[in-house]
Amino acid sequence: MEIRVDGTSLSVTMRTPGDDFDLAIGHLLTEGVIDEASDVLHAMHCLDEDENGSPTYNVVDITLAPDAKVDTSRTRRSSYTSSACGVCGKTSIDAITAQSRYAVAQDPLRVSPETVAGLPGALRERQRVFDRTGGLHAAGLFTADGELLAVREDVGRHNAVDKVIGWAGREGHLPLTGHLLAVSGRASFELTQKAVMAGIPALVAVSAPSSLAVELAADAGLTLVAFVRPPRMTVYTGGHRLGL
Amino acid sequence: MEIRVDGTSLSVTMRTPGDDFDLAIGHLLTEGVIDEASDVLHAMHCLDEDENGSPTYNVVDITLAPDAKVDTSRTRRSSYTSSACGVCGKTSIDAITAQSRYAVAQDPLRVSPETVAGLPGALRERQRVFDRTGGLHAAGLFTADGELLAVREDVGRHNAVDKVIGWAGREGHLPLTGHLLAVSGRASFELTQKAVMAGIPALVAVSAPSSLAVELAADAGLTLVAFVRPPRMTVYTGGHRLGL
Repeated sequence: MEIRVDGTSLSVTMRTPGDDFDLAIGHLLTEGVIDEASDVLHAMHCLDEDENGSPTYNVVDITLAPDAKVDTSRTRRSSYTSSACGVCGKTSIDAITAQSRYAVAQDPLRVSPETVAGLPGALRERQRVFDRTGGLHAAGLFTADGELLAVREDVGRHNAVDKVIGWAGREGHLPLTGHLLAVSGRASFELTQKAVMAGIPALVAVSAPSSLAVELAADAGLTLVAFVRPPRMTVYTGGHRLGL
Repeated sequence: MEIRVDGTSLSVTMRTPGDDFDLAIGHLLTEGVIDEASDVLHAMHCLDEDENGSPTYNVVDITLAPDAKVDTSRTRRSSYTSSACGVCGKTSIDAITAQSRYAVAQDPLRVSPETVAGLPGALRERQRVFDRTGGLHAAGLFTADGELLAVREDVGRHNAVDKVIGWAGREGHLPLTGHLLAVSGRASFELTQKAVMAGIPALVAVSAPSSLAVELAADAGLTLVAFVRPPRMTVYTGGHRLGL
């Protein structure tokens, strides 16, 4: 899917169709192109066609509000992202860190280890496309009590996170203070970054974290829990939020 | 790691350090920037430094042979790829298909279903970094008899495949006629494309294929087997090579 901002192509991502506007808005938010969802005036599918003249629904154009502040250094680049690509078109790792508007380190979230251990199972119960295909990642937003607010699936884990954050943005829930983000796969640097950009103080992953993800989580004050396979899990950073 | 060609930045990928020259050469080969490994005169790490003045070994410069034919449309773009990014900087899916020098559809490979079913296990035995971290993908090159020729690990599955194909290129093994490529995760469109670019007639994946991967495999005449979890596996395309 191609994401355009006021008609200019910004990026292309290999995605699973569905929740396209959430994906586009979440991508703009977590990549720092826009500051808040209200910067988006409206979103529409462009009427591009395939070779048979049928609409593809593979291009989304975002129209910004007149007073939207846009980071043009992030819109001038034209980059392509694959199904799991989070740092495409960036000039360095430095350029994608430490730009969040939200100070997650100060977030007062407290959550029980039992609740955290239960999140992947609660997410798994809602992965309906995974049930049919075995091929999609999922991301879910949870309250500190373990209530699942939203779940999105995508062939790319970064897209699943963008979709769930885009939904939260449209619903007026940003920053996601006091919430947890659970993902079905690994905790990459890019997912950690996206959580911080949305003001989420805790990231919970079923599989391994990368070393860069742990470094960024420590720097940002994000709680990072991975290898969550009850009754075991590994708390990498921010254990005070779990009473550790 | 940044890949430069004759001093010009081509792409940056989030990778696991190690086998950097294989990664760079494999990336150039599977992305169609160069036609054969002999187009590379030499590869070196640039002497970039971190804030403490220590070399980072995060930039590889490839010097091309004077008579190398380079697809400049693929070198002019400056793109960034994450740990699982295969189509960054491309202008469309069409642009990355149907450009292989090798006709894998004509490959006479024949392999027993039992051999195919055993490849993921043989690969798993050699995933030494995964044993320690639980966080890396792997790619392995096999003969039709199931002999493992090379295995490479990386945080990104596309990088693992580029590393193993770069190794094969340096060793003079391209095209990889009659060989099989086994991967520890899903079969993405990008991995299917990379196999075809290296002349590999069969791709074997532990997890799910994407619909685009199946389409490309069918178009290219590649044998695609996924969900390989003995005693079960699913043959999507090219079953004649397994006697089906």
